[in-house]
Amino acid sequence: MSAISLSSATRVVDAAIAKARDIAQPMNIAVVDDGGHLVAFARMDGAIKASIDISIRKARTSILMNAPTSALTAIAQPGAELYGLEQTCGGLVIFGGGIPLTVDGVVVGAIGVSAGSVEQDVKVAEAGVAAL
Amino acid sequence: MSAISLSSATRVVDAAIAKARDIAQPMNIAVVDDGGHLVAFARMDGAIKASIDISIRKARTSILMNAPTSALTAIAQPGAELYGLEQTCGGLVIFGGGIPLTVDGVVVGAIGVSAGSVEQDVKVAEAGVAAL
Amino acid sequence: MSAISLSSATRVVDAAIAKARDIAQPMNIAVVDDGGHLVAFARMDGAIKASIDISIRKARTSILMNAPTSALTAIAQPGAELYGLEQTCGGLVIFGGGIPLTVDGVVVGAIGVSAGSVEQDVKVAEAGVAAL
Amino acid sequence: MSAISLSSATRVVDAAIAKARDIAQPMNIAVVDDGGHLVAFARMDGAIKASIDISIRKARTSILMNAPTSALTAIAQPGAELYGLEQTCGGLVIFGGGIPLTVDGVVVGAIGVSAGSVEQDVKVAEAGVAAL
Repeated sequence: MSAISLSSATRVVDAAIAKARDIAQPMNIAVVDDGGHLVAFARMDGAIKASIDISIRKARTSILMNAPTSALTAIAQPGAELYGLEQTCGGLVIFGGGIPLTVDGVVVGAIGVSAGSVEQDVKVAEAGVAAL
Repeated sequence: MSAISLSSATRVVDAAIAKARDIAQPMNIAVVDDGGHLVAFARMDGAIKASIDISIRKARTSILMNAPTSALTAIAQPGAELYGLEQTCGGLVIFGGGIPLTVDGVVVGAIGVSAGSVEQDVKVAEAGVAAL
Repeated sequence: MSAISLSSATRVVDAAIAKARDIAQPMNIAVVDDGGHLVAFARMDGAIKASIDISIRKARTSILMNAPTSALTAIAQPGAELYGLEQTCGGLVIFGGGIPLTVDGVVVGAIGVSAGSVEQDVKVAEAGVAAL
Repeated sequence: MSAISLSSATRVVDAAIAKARDIAQPMNIAVVDDGGHLVAFARMDGAIKASIDISIRKARTSILMNAPTSALTAIAQPGAELYGLEQTCGGLVIFGGGIPLTVDGVVVGAIGVSAGSVEQDVKVAEAGVAAL
């Protein structure tokens, strides 16, 4: 089975919510399967609406690029190798907050978190990753 | 307060999941706020992937039309008054499974359910509505 | 492993090409993985260009709906249960020519064939399925 | 005849695959005709999914601009003459890996390669070009 189950995805979302409460930053949290399709999503009260799309897109980007979105920031800057990358695939996100979810080294999905600073988004996403 | 909270949305999703289990039909379940923006989402294991988009779109359609999506089926048929309605707003869904969520007569959001027959989708959506 | 390999996808495409030659109808043939992402594609000389998109979309529709696209034709007609279905998910195809690819009962991808009559498209897609 | 045949396109793809194997970098490889429409495509096992779209888009960009995509990198940077170019035509790719395919000086199509470093993508695309 290479796609994350709803119960695993819910555990990931709940852990991310707990971390977001710890740091007092309401977040949008999305979990997609290994094909980039949404499995679970939660918008915490007060989290900005733009981050609904951004969180889902971060998770999808992590699947499509097989990498955390934070790994894309430097290489997609003006003058860098993949400048313009974010225009492809219907729109990728090239700042942190999306991280692949793996079980025994196999990617089963990805989490995307958005609504805080990028540093906060990454921290909350990592809490989700740790729960799997 | 006219927008549904995450805790209320989660209660709605959980009630819908329980009903979907009762009828042994895995479902995609989405709850949006009074602006049509996603608050909570769950894809049950085995639910078809097309219904991710359809469930979210049903909930959003219910907000945009201020009506259950089942109310749109007849009026959007060839020859009927709103034939072609589904082409608008970036794509509406004109079959049942989307229902507004109200508190004291005020719309606070909507639920969209998809992956079964339309009758099953409506039944599961109604179980979500009843939980609010 | 739940996603089709390139060598298996190529075998499927080649079998479909052979069948298309048999019936003297140039075709567009697409194979996607279990997430609906393209793995292999071939446009035979003389096949119409519209069917590039249609064949890929048929394969993707089969994954999203977990069904052959021919199963959608009747239920998406005016007056039928899922009228308007093709508007969802960024555009589904609701006529025959897309079929899931399974190995030991597990869906590993899908084939989509387009450029002939629907009957021809289905026949060629079935030849692809049989090669797996 | 100004459009590449499937057999020529397949030869191009196969040569690119062979080169990708040489350098041990799984790739997405697309060949389009002189109108920018897909003729042949292969995703090697393990190649990232984002590069499906990127490889096809590189090939299409090469046709639309009548140039290798590597020729666009400098002129589309902030401050340069065509800054913002990648926003046009539904999305162009402005880094290397797309190259026109010519026969006797006439453009018959283009190849697009993606999934490695830009240098690797260009090398593999050049191997495809050399096979024509």
